[in-house]
Amino acid sequence: MNQDYIKPDNWSIIEEGFDVERVKSSESLFSIGNGAMGQRANFEETYTGPTFQGSYIAGVYYPDKTRVGWWKNGYPEYFAKVLNAPNWIGIDIEVDGEKLDLYTCKSVTNFRRELNMKEGWYQRSFHAVLPNNIEVSVTSTRFLSLDLDEVGAIKYEITPVNQEATIALIPYLDSGIMNEDTNWDDKFWDTYNLAHEENAAYILSKTMKTEYHVCTGMMNQVFVNGIQKNVSPKVEANGTYIHLKYTLQVRKGETAGLTKFGGYTVSLNHKEEDLQATSKAILKQASESGFNTLLNLQKKAWSSIWEMADIVIEGDVKAQQGIRFNIFQLNQTYLGKDARLNIGPKGFTGEKYGGSTYWDTEAYCIPFYMATKDQGVARNLLTYRYNHLEKAIENAEKLGFTNGAALYPMVTMNGEECHNEWEITFEEIHRNGAMTFAIYNYVRYTGDYTYVTEKGLEVMIAIARFWHQRATFSTEKNKYVILGVTGPNEYENNVNNNWYTNYLAKWCIEYCIENINTIKTQYKSDYQWIIEKTNLNQEEINAMLEVADQMYFPYSEKYQVYLQQDGFLDKELITVDNLDRSQRPINQKWSWDRILRSPYIKQADTLQGFYMFEDQFTKEELTRHFDFYEPFTVHESSLSPCVHSIQAAALDRMDQAYTFYLRTSRLDLDDYNKEVEEGLHITSMAGTWMSIVEGFGGLRIKNDTLSFSPKIPKEWKGYTFNVNFRNQILKVKVSQEGTSFTLEGTKELLIYVDNKEFKISPNSLITV
Amino acid sequence: MNQDYIKPDNWSIIEEGFDVERVKSSESLFSIGNGAMGQRANFEETYTGPTFQGSYIAGVYYPDKTRVGWWKNGYPEYFAKVLNAPNWIGIDIEVDGEKLDLYTCKSVTNFRRELNMKEGWYQRSFHAVLPNNIEVSVTSTRFLSLDLDEVGAIKYEITPVNQEATIALIPYLDSGIMNEDTNWDDKFWDTYNLAHEENAAYILSKTMKTEYHVCTGMMNQVFVNGIQKNVSPKVEANGTYIHLKYTLQVRKGETAGLTKFGGYTVSLNHKEEDLQATSKAILKQASESGFNTLLNLQKKAWSSIWEMADIVIEGDVKAQQGIRFNIFQLNQTYLGKDARLNIGPKGFTGEKYGGSTYWDTEAYCIPFYMATKDQGVARNLLTYRYNHLEKAIENAEKLGFTNGAALYPMVTMNGEECHNEWEITFEEIHRNGAMTFAIYNYVRYTGDYTYVTEKGLEVMIAIARFWHQRATFSTEKNKYVILGVTGPNEYENNVNNNWYTNYLAKWCIEYCIENINTIKTQYKSDYQWIIEKTNLNQEEINAMLEVADQMYFPYSEKYQVYLQQDGFLDKELITVDNLDRSQRPINQKWSWDRILRSPYIKQADTLQGFYMFEDQFTKEELTRHFDFYEPFTVHESSLSPCVHSIQAAALDRMDQAYTFYLRTSRLDLDDYNKEVEEGLHITSMAGTWMSIVEGFGGLRIKNDTLSFSPKIPKEWKGYTFNVNFRNQILKVKVSQEGTSFTLEGTKELLIYVDNKEFKISPNSLITV
Repeated sequence: MNQDYIKPDNWSIIEEGFDVERVKSSESLFSIGNGAMGQRANFEETYTGPTFQGSYIAGVYYPDKTRVGWWKNGYPEYFAKVLNAPNWIGIDIEVDGEKLDLYTCKSVTNFRRELNMKEGWYQRSFHAVLPNNIEVSVTSTRFLSLDLDEVGAIKYEITPVNQEATIALIPYLDSGIMNEDTNWDDKFWDTYNLAHEENAAYILSKTMKTEYHVCTGMMNQVFVNGIQKNVSPKVEANGTYIHLKYTLQVRKGETAGLTKFGGYTVSLNHKEEDLQATSKAILKQASESGFNTLLNLQKKAWSSIWEMADIVIEGDVKAQQGIRFNIFQLNQTYLGKDARLNIGPKGFTGEKYGGSTYWDTEAYCIPFYMATKDQGVARNLLTYRYNHLEKAIENAEKLGFTNGAALYPMVTMNGEECHNEWEITFEEIHRNGAMTFAIYNYVRYTGDYTYVTEKGLEVMIAIARFWHQRATFSTEKNKYVILGVTGPNEYENNVNNNWYTNYLAKWCIEYCIENINTIKTQYKSDYQWIIEKTNLNQEEINAMLEVADQMYFPYSEKYQVYLQQDGFLDKELITVDNLDRSQRPINQKWSWDRILRSPYIKQADTLQGFYMFEDQFTKEELTRHFDFYEPFTVHESSLSPCVHSIQAAALDRMDQAYTFYLRTSRLDLDDYNKEVEEGLHITSMAGTWMSIVEGFGGLRIKNDTLSFSPKIPKEWKGYTFNVNFRNQILKVKVSQEGTSFTLEGTKELLIYVDNKEFKISPNSLITV
Repeated sequence: MNQDYIKPDNWSIIEEGFDVERVKSSESLFSIGNGAMGQRANFEETYTGPTFQGSYIAGVYYPDKTRVGWWKNGYPEYFAKVLNAPNWIGIDIEVDGEKLDLYTCKSVTNFRRELNMKEGWYQRSFHAVLPNNIEVSVTSTRFLSLDLDEVGAIKYEITPVNQEATIALIPYLDSGIMNEDTNWDDKFWDTYNLAHEENAAYILSKTMKTEYHVCTGMMNQVFVNGIQKNVSPKVEANGTYIHLKYTLQVRKGETAGLTKFGGYTVSLNHKEEDLQATSKAILKQASESGFNTLLNLQKKAWSSIWEMADIVIEGDVKAQQGIRFNIFQLNQTYLGKDARLNIGPKGFTGEKYGGSTYWDTEAYCIPFYMATKDQGVARNLLTYRYNHLEKAIENAEKLGFTNGAALYPMVTMNGEECHNEWEITFEEIHRNGAMTFAIYNYVRYTGDYTYVTEKGLEVMIAIARFWHQRATFSTEKNKYVILGVTGPNEYENNVNNNWYTNYLAKWCIEYCIENINTIKTQYKSDYQWIIEKTNLNQEEINAMLEVADQMYFPYSEKYQVYLQQDGFLDKELITVDNLDRSQRPINQKWSWDRILRSPYIKQADTLQGFYMFEDQFTKEELTRHFDFYEPFTVHESSLSPCVHSIQAAALDRMDQAYTFYLRTSRLDLDDYNKEVEEGLHITSMAGTWMSIVEGFGGLRIKNDTLSFSPKIPKEWKGYTFNVNFRNQILKVKVSQEGTSFTLEGTKELLIYVDNKEFKISPNSLITV
């Protein structure tokens, strides 16, 4: 781990003490979001020290022009940027005319941050001595409402403690913001109107190019010692900024308070011409409810999320804090309400990676959302890709594929590819297989075959076509080969016959044809329109099957393992434990060529295949491959430790599984990868959930129902988790002594525990 | 070929007829340069049609900030841009107040361009009807002086043919220019002074970042019917532009003329504070000599270049025009006077590729300069790399190499790497071997071993160290392997065991150690200081030799050929002649991944090794490899046809050799690669020279002297070429009947012709 300042706590993330070096890290860790918007934990008041400012609106992006050294045919025209949105949280403070700025205060004591995950709010408090020697005590609490997801609320309280003072509370809106990752200090927002009315103000702006119109609004209330005051604000504005200044005379020990309701209304959800009126109406509603009422609703909303999604760990507070942090962040990022949205790898906590959607969703996030939400949420995630099928076909056409073959993008906002490293965009094609895998995963878990007949098969056919066309025949090997790819391990580029990719390609074709046959016999009317729409014929099916049947897989007789790719054994096979610590992380220390020719693996690659298709291999095969590959794995992808944790647990290596679990669950809290300042790793958090549920709990789907093989790390007394399985909730409690299952539902459920059948009646408990 | 509008002519490049579609191509083809500066053939007067404006000053570049999608460790901070320099050729024309602009004229007839290569001047003439119906006849002649290489001269003559007219001649200077390849419309020049005096004007500007100060100057003379007139100009200027406007009343049929002397003085060569005074002095000198006197000097200077460098081809005017165009452009680009300069791949004809120096110089250009110039020119080129040795060591250190290992940059202006595609910058490491090869080539040709003792061995040791460290041991193969490289064929990236690279690595180590041993026994005092300076010991030498001895080479028993790289035979081996024409050039039609997994070869790769180390292989081996690889070669690198022409000639396949010869010699004239608009391919022009001298003439070095095996394409009556061999000139004349040799020198010369010994006395002729 790289940092250790977060206080262990079961339900909260807590920082104590002010350290300018930690501000950017904490801005990431204390981020809040409600699925529709979110922000980094920037201070409300001015801060002139190092900070990374960020507010984000779901679905609002900017297609930044891409420039690469040398253009290659097929590169996308733009790179989608997660866009820093207008700031509505700002509240400047003046104390006897002196600006409050923690970077310039004479002292800052009792500084404390708390992110209360149970109730969904963030609070910061501190005691500061300003340059003019006035001492103030400040508490600021804020949350983004889950109920009214266009609104957030801040209660900002300040008390002069050593003398009376004139306190100006200056809430503002600012659309003159920039992205940290702007290439050329470009502005991405065009502000076209500022307005104010009594205690409210609005900025109307739109994103350039994409033309998302956004009304950023605020409505304020002023208090002294908790009693609302009617103070007329002084308004000041310039082209992209507006503030309301409330000036109060405050006696020593009295508390001046400001409640600020703010947020966005966006043309994605409203008519452009209604944005300001809608903003006003929503802010009025929030304002009239008041901070405390809204906060109580917030607590209830989070309570109902936790009721389903919580994992309780007894006897290990750091592990408990880790998993709750992960579950909390996933729910802050994506709630599944809106099929146009997806799960950005940094959520609302940073700009890095751009775009909202990676294969992370299909490969890592679906299980979490299937088990902890209504199954419609996972279906929404699948539908997102179905809606992008046409763009995926266009994307494949740009690369020379024909006849309705689809290549889903590596990174996207709207279905178009928007990433442009050739070794990723053009070659990391295994992502395409994850789309089919997610359908398979959804169907086996939910039993909802209607998705396949209505949408899924079309996607699967387009993907099978891609693999069919992408494979080529090697006369040398007398097999089909897939040349020039990048596997999940991005520390290899443009390799031949990446085992994972080849395996997935074969599987995608076979699974597609299996479904064609199922639909042909069992859903005849669907079969007709799908075949007509996709123009599929038996000749093409036969050709596809030929590729699947004759696929080549690199294999070492010596080690009895599938090789990650052709030529892997030519590398200097020095394991990671023989690598000098000073050389790590290698992605920060080594030049790219050195990484590429090394044996080091960024994340599960061959093992990713063993994870996804576990039941197609024996435990001995898994052991051999795990023992061969894990020692070369540097886990420098956030998606790496979770898969290894699950596999270590499957191999009864609980110490190793536990170590990987800590690494995945506290990746950001302890900043393992030395980059938490840039934002959190949201998608891998779903992997943390899998580490417990699939790893320790051993959840699998077997014979069309749930199967468990519960294990428990020796550090824990017990743990519990819940899964929503086909609209019944199964609650699982594992302790050192045994496992109990409680079913909330209406139908008896058959499950397997350690391969033995058990039947659970509704609302009853069994112990194994 | 892609275009066919250049008139065949033995000594000139001629275009007839005005076609807006051809303007940019012709701007490239009619470019002029004098080694110190150069320009594209832009019109002097305003042209509002499609044009690519370019003036360039040798050694003046701009380190443009590089932006890549995702930064990788070791990337250089900047990409060197060939910088469009202030325009001094501009002469605007107004006829009765109407601007002359060929794009808006009612008609343009008798349009003709001629680039006279024999005498080194460029002329354009036309007849135009302006929108105001005035008909004018214009002739403009210009050249860049070889004698005064900071000066160029233009004679611009205009005659109103249908009525009298007020003609304004408006010579100007303009530093408000931009690069075509600017990423963000950035300006790279900062203009800080404009001045004028009588008929002269000056702009002082400097490049941003690199701070090259440049005085751009002009001095003008006005004539009517050839008689100089004293007309006071009206001056107009703004921040980056200054003109002098001469207004003349000209009768129908009379000719208004302007002679403009212009050019640059640069802080590379003068003190910054003297630039304007120096410019003035030089322009005055030119101006007082007058246009015709300067032009006569120009003719003489080119005559002496041609005396040595000309190749005469009888009976094939297109072939003749091609080779002269190539020799002419090489001499326009680099004359070997200044060891700080090198041979940019586009010379002074365009911006593409950036940077001035590629491995092209060492691999392709050295033989031409060795044989057609004093041998000091080639030594200067080698010294250029010696002077960059320290930077090459730093470059290797950035990539993790130690102990004085050097990696020469892929592209450079000052020794630093300035290209940033990882697959090129980090992996196209074979360039390093070309540095050693050039020393070997120089020594075997010139016999000048002092270069090795004084400078070359240091370079060779640093390069041998690189190869030693870069190779790794494969226990699987029980050999040393070189993983993750890009060979000369850039249509493969990040491959393992590129045969050419492995072969070159082995050879570099062996040749270095051979020279260490030679110096140890024959140059003992040099040995001492070199060993001390480089800190070399026997242990390191042994380790290096072990790598060379145990190097792995991929080989196919089935085809009996070395494989371009591991896995080459897994590709779909469809030869180029089975590829649909509409798919070519593949680099314009296919996405990068498709190119990479195809078998298609951009330029000689395995065959490049057979070219460089021809005497290490049998003719049967060459035949086999040529027959295997050439059918997959698309020759989309300008450096490709020449090597294949030489090898086809060596294999007595004269038809094929001739086809390749035409392709290399007329690559730009006929625009084979559909990109001549961007500029000319200068470095490959040296390959054209090699095609004749080494290919048809069969020139090799054998037993420390010249060896020939002359052949002649059936299309030719005969051809001649000259080589400067160790300060004697051998003139070679090959005809269908036989070959004659004439020696200009002082010592008898032994040569081989078709492996038979002949002795030639000075100033005598032998016929074989």
